[in-house]
Amino acid sequence: MPPNQRSQTKAPGGFLPHPLDQLTIEEIGKARNIILGLHSATSIGFRTITLEEPSKKILTMFLSAEHKGELSSVTWRPPRRARILFELISKDGLVELCESVVDVGTGLEKSFEVLDKKCHAPLNAEEVAMFPEVTMASPLFKKAISELSLPPNTVIVIDPWMYGGWENPSEDCPRYMQGLVYARDPKTTNPDSNHYAFPLPLIPVMDVAKKEIIRIDQLPTGGTEDGLEVGTGSKEPLAHCKACEYVPELIPGGLRQDLKPLNVVQPYGPSFTVTGNSLVEWQKWRFRVGFNPREGATIHDVWYDGRSVLYRLSFSEMSVPYGDPRAPFHRKQAFDFGDGGAGRAANNLELGCDCLGLIKYFDGIMNDVHGKAVISKNVICMHEQDDGILWKHTNYRTGRAVVTRNRRLIIQFIITLANYEYIFAYQFDQAGGISLETRATGVVSTVPIDFGKTSPWGNIVSPGVLAQNHQHLFCVRIDPAIDGYENTVVQEESHPLPFCPEINPYGNGYEVRKTVMKTSGFADAAPQHGRIFKIVNENKHNPISGRPVGYKLVPSPTQLTLAHPDSIMAKRMAYASHHLWFTKHRDGELWAAGPFTNQSSVERGGVKDMADRKENIENDDVVVWHSFGLTHNPRVEDFPIMPVETHQIHLKPADFFSKNPAIDVPSAKNQTSILYKKGGLVSSFVTEVPQSHDGDRRKSILIVDDNSTDSIAVQKTQQQGIKACCM
Amino acid sequence: MPPNQRSQTKAPGGFLPHPLDQLTIEEIGKARNIILGLHSATSIGFRTITLEEPSKKILTMFLSAEHKGELSSVTWRPPRRARILFELISKDGLVELCESVVDVGTGLEKSFEVLDKKCHAPLNAEEVAMFPEVTMASPLFKKAISELSLPPNTVIVIDPWMYGGWENPSEDCPRYMQGLVYARDPKTTNPDSNHYAFPLPLIPVMDVAKKEIIRIDQLPTGGTEDGLEVGTGSKEPLAHCKACEYVPELIPGGLRQDLKPLNVVQPYGPSFTVTGNSLVEWQKWRFRVGFNPREGATIHDVWYDGRSVLYRLSFSEMSVPYGDPRAPFHRKQAFDFGDGGAGRAANNLELGCDCLGLIKYFDGIMNDVHGKAVISKNVICMHEQDDGILWKHTNYRTGRAVVTRNRRLIIQFIITLANYEYIFAYQFDQAGGISLETRATGVVSTVPIDFGKTSPWGNIVSPGVLAQNHQHLFCVRIDPAIDGYENTVVQEESHPLPFCPEINPYGNGYEVRKTVMKTSGFADAAPQHGRIFKIVNENKHNPISGRPVGYKLVPSPTQLTLAHPDSIMAKRMAYASHHLWFTKHRDGELWAAGPFTNQSSVERGGVKDMADRKENIENDDVVVWHSFGLTHNPRVEDFPIMPVETHQIHLKPADFFSKNPAIDVPSAKNQTSILYKKGGLVSSFVTEVPQSHDGDRRKSILIVDDNSTDSIAVQKTQQQGIKACCM
Repeated sequence: MPPNQRSQTKAPGGFLPHPLDQLTIEEIGKARNIILGLHSATSIGFRTITLEEPSKKILTMFLSAEHKGELSSVTWRPPRRARILFELISKDGLVELCESVVDVGTGLEKSFEVLDKKCHAPLNAEEVAMFPEVTMASPLFKKAISELSLPPNTVIVIDPWMYGGWENPSEDCPRYMQGLVYARDPKTTNPDSNHYAFPLPLIPVMDVAKKEIIRIDQLPTGGTEDGLEVGTGSKEPLAHCKACEYVPELIPGGLRQDLKPLNVVQPYGPSFTVTGNSLVEWQKWRFRVGFNPREGATIHDVWYDGRSVLYRLSFSEMSVPYGDPRAPFHRKQAFDFGDGGAGRAANNLELGCDCLGLIKYFDGIMNDVHGKAVISKNVICMHEQDDGILWKHTNYRTGRAVVTRNRRLIIQFIITLANYEYIFAYQFDQAGGISLETRATGVVSTVPIDFGKTSPWGNIVSPGVLAQNHQHLFCVRIDPAIDGYENTVVQEESHPLPFCPEINPYGNGYEVRKTVMKTSGFADAAPQHGRIFKIVNENKHNPISGRPVGYKLVPSPTQLTLAHPDSIMAKRMAYASHHLWFTKHRDGELWAAGPFTNQSSVERGGVKDMADRKENIENDDVVVWHSFGLTHNPRVEDFPIMPVETHQIHLKPADFFSKNPAIDVPSAKNQTSILYKKGGLVSSFVTEVPQSHDGDRRKSILIVDDNSTDSIAVQKTQQQGIKACCM
Repeated sequence: MPPNQRSQTKAPGGFLPHPLDQLTIEEIGKARNIILGLHSATSIGFRTITLEEPSKKILTMFLSAEHKGELSSVTWRPPRRARILFELISKDGLVELCESVVDVGTGLEKSFEVLDKKCHAPLNAEEVAMFPEVTMASPLFKKAISELSLPPNTVIVIDPWMYGGWENPSEDCPRYMQGLVYARDPKTTNPDSNHYAFPLPLIPVMDVAKKEIIRIDQLPTGGTEDGLEVGTGSKEPLAHCKACEYVPELIPGGLRQDLKPLNVVQPYGPSFTVTGNSLVEWQKWRFRVGFNPREGATIHDVWYDGRSVLYRLSFSEMSVPYGDPRAPFHRKQAFDFGDGGAGRAANNLELGCDCLGLIKYFDGIMNDVHGKAVISKNVICMHEQDDGILWKHTNYRTGRAVVTRNRRLIIQFIITLANYEYIFAYQFDQAGGISLETRATGVVSTVPIDFGKTSPWGNIVSPGVLAQNHQHLFCVRIDPAIDGYENTVVQEESHPLPFCPEINPYGNGYEVRKTVMKTSGFADAAPQHGRIFKIVNENKHNPISGRPVGYKLVPSPTQLTLAHPDSIMAKRMAYASHHLWFTKHRDGELWAAGPFTNQSSVERGGVKDMADRKENIENDDVVVWHSFGLTHNPRVEDFPIMPVETHQIHLKPADFFSKNPAIDVPSAKNQTSILYKKGGLVSSFVTEVPQSHDGDRRKSILIVDDNSTDSIAVQKTQQQGIKACCM
């Protein structure tokens, strides 16, 4: 790589971004200008300008030099490239969706493609903002609303949605959007009143290019007795609806008053450090945090105690198909990553609201329709959590207990897609484990139902309000690097041995059956056989056990897609037809349901296509994908806001280390825990504040008498050394 | 009930225990004296003196009066009764195991039974203490040890074990114990050195009545190539063993130094209250905490917001069968509840070690072999935990987010059974949910293996040390009271609808199939069908959905027993042959594997026998049992102490409430969360200390510069109101 290119990758202030850092504001500007320069004759709408991660071949060379501490002496760096999804818009309004990769160092375009008409970009903020405006101005929509008998001055609230699966795979599909229509509770002017309790039986459909409502779908509102028919189609759809609110000022009876504060206090600061834009070090872990508009937070180049564990870890896709067979509900299917974008939808987190303790926030750098960089503040939060006991043992002879606590490092982001919220977290622990957590919350999607009826396809969560049965089908992508990039997946199951004198004379014996995954393909969970998957490095053996070093994944044996395999809905999310997929790494293959999901009729370029190549994956650059989900048949308790439905999957070392890697975690006795005492209920509240570095502590001791509302603060100062726990 | 009996149930100080309170010290004394009085001619060894919970019929009448606030006016209380398991020992040493129930109010014996010779009491502390002494003094054992070539002055360490399944079901079985034998690392004199890294190939067997070692089982020490044969039987079994330590002072390289304190501080005290010995109220929950030697902590009479949810909740049994087919390992099968006793094995918890924040401890009252009451301090801890986000929604139009945190109340106990530890917790949340958590930790059970060999039946976790494959099979007992005691279990599954124009024209539709459990029996998990179980009250319907009010249990689809169904091992734990059991309540039927598991050959009086009665359980007093487990094929990382393997099951309201019951949880902004800042990494540390009751706060603000080791405390005082979160 010539010297001039190296200098060009330096940002103005001399800052050299890490190859995995998001594009800088300046780099987004350069990428935009390259595209504008190449297509100066045409109007351009920018969809996405995002880092094109370096090829694995180049990046791993760079990372190798980085981990060896040789970066200051190497003369090359991976080029900084941007992938730009944009629209060329002709004077007569014809739109071509294009994708380029440009080198923001050299200014050269590395690739350019006009995409197939079947490919649709994810929704952007401009479209989401436009949809309600176009709808409200539409004569078709006005007419449909006028045919309903609504209270005077009813405020209409519209949730824009992706159009869902395109039903005619042989035809090109124009870009459409649909919307779910609600009213605000006529009894309030509060703009945060919960409109999902007041659904209207209309779905307007917009031609996006024309900015025109082309059709109003009338919704079936019947119950069990109506089958697929439309129901009574009451012209007074709100007559029986009642408020069901979640903003505090609208909750009847107000909020509960007896919840006392619980504070997480880290007087000596965090145990993690952040270097540059992306490097995190914590408790022998070292990794980088990435962020992009599609996946939100991503994790890269994960090492523990000087040994490589993962190359890349991400939440790749999530689809939410609805199970109500009546048209047009078969088009209620959101791909929240591919149609929307977890990064685009990421909440700007707020201190004291989304986590406790000492918080590091990361910002996201995205772009607007003009290609200008947009900084989204605090889209990722990182903090430590206590998760109970990590390990404990008591020697009953001596009475000595040694107990350590399970500290975790959480990298979290939260997305809002109209009604729903999802909370995603990567969790690192001190014993070499990594967990991926999803929490579903927000408002269940609602449609109207004739008052008094019930439905086989959902539940009544408020009068006249049907929450339809649906699924949330996630897929995580695990690109392992177990002591290197050549890894093997081994399926392990536990089975009873034959009950016979020669093999298993007492009938208690069982065997562990191992199956090496040799070519790309799929597998399913089988908890009845204790089926797990180990990702091992066959070239390196554990010095204690002699087995290949590895990590294990216990797959979540959750229900897979309920849509019929021949349905458009199922075909679009083939990734959700099996729990596990194993593919051979190719650069850029990051998307379980393929790069373009919006209005798709079939999963194209998704994980099934990758697996179908039947490539070697034994002792090779294997990628593991895990699909799991939640069949969500709503409870009344899921309205107006659903308490989190939490799901975790775990990656744990399995003969990777030569003993419990957390055995050196200190069993420090927490100095601020206090006793609840019976009778007078007198407790002492102790908090530690570091004062100097000679090991002294100041304790402020508070006597709490919670029989009364009095609290008396007593300040003391005393010497206090660090105590080990239960020793 | 006559007045004199009422007065007799009053303890000396006038204190009237709740019918679910543990026996008091005085009551244990009375129970003892009743038995001594009735059997004055014989020597008596007391095994267990524990509360005989009142019959459900009487207790529910009492609870009804209690909940109506009528207790002060009712003239009766359930009698206080003790169940006493004891041995009558004749002058010539013959032992009869007996069980009595006595009324400690009237002093009358209500029942007396000499138990079948096949019934063996759980191990007690005296036997556990006696076993190593008898072994060390045994000529047989001395001879066996002398035949091994051990370093001079090797210290022998013995783990007493239950004998396991009795192989001759037709014969009465004498009371036996066995022991696993280890050496202390010859290089240290530290009594907490990890002897499990130095296993010896002997299992001594003791006749308990005779206090005599009757046999030394020589252990097979072979590897894969030896099949069921014994292996080389090296006479230098410790030659290749190496230390693998967990106590801090013995860990090579010492402890990690970079973990900074994380404190949980509750400046206004806890959100819970404890009344009397057992009544807990927290966040609309109200329940009682019980404790007994067999189950440890139990939960009773659970109400939420004035509505009944559960009658009784407990961890009923756990068996740990080992899967190594070689004799005598087929007898490695512990019933930790029935053979040992979770209450007897409960750790005395220590402030700052086993939980953080403000802790309420409960003591356990048990007895010694003389029938004297023994108080075991701090056997249960109760505290609040933060568990991330409870629910969140952002109205993307207004940008307003409302977010609440998931506070939980944890009732936890930890047991030690020789090598293993288990952490059990009941967790209550604010959304009407109850979770049961198990964590397995401690030391995996080890036996010797010839150096350099590997085994199909376990893993090498230290040189010459085999950790055998095994299972942990739990069973929880759920005695529901969903708005009353007559409940029904309904199995629900989600299935695709037929893909045809009349039923499911687009292929997306799915149905929910419901099956009412009409008679007692069993069921298994079927996650591929999204199978869940609802416990409903058919007599009461949700005002919103019209469905019966209920709670749902998502069963854990974990692997069930791997032992062959015809093996002694499997027969003793029939409860672990299915995930779910449904039985009709009978008083005293609390034990999944039957009342007497020690040396059993078959599960007698366990949940299978109860289910086999085929009683009506529809709209009746149904009890739900859930078996789940962990197939534990050890990793090297599970040694010397295993990081927790955590498992949770959840009971969640399903149309029990008429909306999210946690919608009134305040979205209070936490005032002590602080920012980690880039660059200088300057953060502000804020802690709140209540000063007075006019809403003022003092904040102490600490500037932490964690680029250096300096910490500069800056004290400020400022006014600060309570802020709602993200409003």
